Amino acid sequence: MSIVSTINAYAVLEAGGPFKSYQLELGELGATEVELEIMYCGICHSDLSMIENEWGNGQYPMIAGHEIIGRITAVGEQVTHLKKETVVGLGWNSGYCKTCHTCRTGDFNLCKEAKFTILTNGGFADKVRADVSSLVVIPDGVDPVSAGPLLCAGITVFNPLVQFDVKPTDKVAVIGIGGLGHLALKFFNAWGCEVTAFTSSEEKRKEALSLGAHKTLNSRDPLDIEAATTNFDFILSTVNANLDWDLYIQTLKPRGRLHFVGTVPNPIQFTLFPLIFFQRSISASPAGSPGTMETMLEFAAHHQIRPEVEIFPMSQIEAAFEHLRSGKARYRIVLSREG
Amino acid sequence: MSIVSTINAYAVLEAGGPFKSYQLELGELGATEVELEIMYCGICHSDLSMIENEWGNGQYPMIAGHEIIGRITAVGEQVTHLKKETVVGLGWNSGYCKTCHTCRTGDFNLCKEAKFTILTNGGFADKVRADVSSLVVIPDGVDPVSAGPLLCAGITVFNPLVQFDVKPTDKVAVIGIGGLGHLALKFFNAWGCEVTAFTSSEEKRKEALSLGAHKTLNSRDPLDIEAATTNFDFILSTVNANLDWDLYIQTLKPRGRLHFVGTVPNPIQFTLFPLIFFQRSISASPAGSPGTMETMLEFAAHHQIRPEVEIFPMSQIEAAFEHLRSGKARYRIVLSREG
Repeated sequence: MSIVSTINAYAVLEAGGPFKSYQLELGELGATEVELEIMYCGICHSDLSMIENEWGNGQYPMIAGHEIIGRITAVGEQVTHLKKETVVGLGWNSGYCKTCHTCRTGDFNLCKEAKFTILTNGGFADKVRADVSSLVVIPDGVDPVSAGPLLCAGITVFNPLVQFDVKPTDKVAVIGIGGLGHLALKFFNAWGCEVTAFTSSEEKRKEALSLGAHKTLNSRDPLDIEAATTNFDFILSTVNANLDWDLYIQTLKPRGRLHFVGTVPNPIQFTLFPLIFFQRSISASPAGSPGTMETMLEFAAHHQIRPEVEIFPMSQIEAAFEHLRSGKARYRIVLSREG
Repeated sequence: MSIVSTINAYAVLEAGGPFKSYQLELGELGATEVELEIMYCGICHSDLSMIENEWGNGQYPMIAGHEIIGRITAVGEQVTHLKKETVVGLGWNSGYCKTCHTCRTGDFNLCKEAKFTILTNGGFADKVRADVSSLVVIPDGVDPVSAGPLLCAGITVFNPLVQFDVKPTDKVAVIGIGGLGHLALKFFNAWGCEVTAFTSSEEKRKEALSLGAHKTLNSRDPLDIEAATTNFDFILSTVNANLDWDLYIQTLKPRGRLHFVGTVPNPIQFTLFPLIFFQRSISASPAGSPGTMETMLEFAAHHQIRPEVEIFPMSQIEAAFEHLRSGKARYRIVLSREG
């Protein structure tokens, strides 16, 4: 069966440009590809960074969007385990080389040749194609309307729990209570940990407690920080700005870890002695592998974890991005093509 | 039995001062203390740092020296498992609180209250006292003459193999082929790993290969570095200076780790993206716990690993430090009080 398609998208035609209606003709569906009719697509801060070419790797016209929930409309001839009408998710990566050692040991997300959904054509459109290896089935118990943000924000904060063997007995903290951070509070709470939110705003403090934090710390209050010296096993930073990392490192226990999932464009700086004396680590990671995404979705279903979302019709994508830029989104925006 | 002693030491009376003959009267031996007659004491670069108060925590008069091999001459009344005449080793720490959670989980070396041998009176003397918890028995098969440096340099480079679960299948590299680095090459080789030495000197290159490196890389040659992109699982830095860490980080595989055991006084700086994309880590650690020191000594005996040492009579301590300062020590200096 020959499958060719026209994609109707909201693309930016040049770095920083506005969204324009944009049509793209696609040729034959690849043997291991799947085509989805897009239902929902979350908006991530990295969509904005890519649209504005903040990281220098943009290609235009660009169809961004990588927190995609869609219904399968067609499958390539070698795809046997997924069928039409199944609701699936697609995140940051839309394919992997599948042949390198990294892929063959399950770390598809760390593959040097991993494709970025934004650069292969993303979710601000009516249809999307991706290699079947990158898709995850949305299980019963996960609401498709709000599930999109799980596929980037969610997996990005959940993945370190798995990768670094965070234990339910650990004391954990989150820096930055936004799109990623609010999901971190929910996941870390469900993981069994004592959860602290670093925040300097009274409004965010209350929200953090309602989202899953057991405690809050004001990172601008020296007394708060001093009281937390050698307190945490694991601190997750979701922010996109450079902070005084030595201040946070001093709140880590012996063997503690400061882990970055927020992208900080400028160099990170820290003092070595406090790492040496207490055998502390600094690390970072991207979104997770498809296998870990499946684990996350099962865990989210079991614990009824869902992103806090604000829904905009996809046709109002420009207004939605304006809301994102205002910093007022609570906590994730989802574009809807459904009803 | 009442035990009081006079220690005859080579002390510095003020920061940066010369070594002077110095006598110290000690009171009753504590119930859990052990007194040693010192046979050998290695010289570590951190002795120099402490003598010169480079880290700002010096106390004077100071009896430095913390790579000590000695014969037990007296034990406190609660010491039951060690006896007179046993040859033991004493390293960076001379005691621990033994009551905090860190100690109770075996990480004595990360105890906030751990005592520094240099600050409780160290090994540039005829006698030394330490809490029994900090001593390790020198096993058969380990030559006491050269064993001193195992108790700081050796354990410092061996400890990360244990702490971070380095595997014999890992590709590892060492930055800095000196007192610590030469022992790292020996231990990493015996650990079963493919070992690379980073070096920019032709002389050191040949020595590194003779010490256990299978390969060498010239860190000043961009072609060498490019060829090593995503090559290493684990890189150990033993140097005391800031380098272009991004350059080394790019040679780490996905999940790779850059680990610091050399003390760099100025802030460390690195770019976050290469950590994020490949889930890499940066970490650091001090010398190991007594338990890990025992493991190291058994492993050293089994694999016949011994430090490369140059022996000076302890009375020539000033000349020995001059040799250390010259950068020509190959690779560790040991002061001897024996024959």
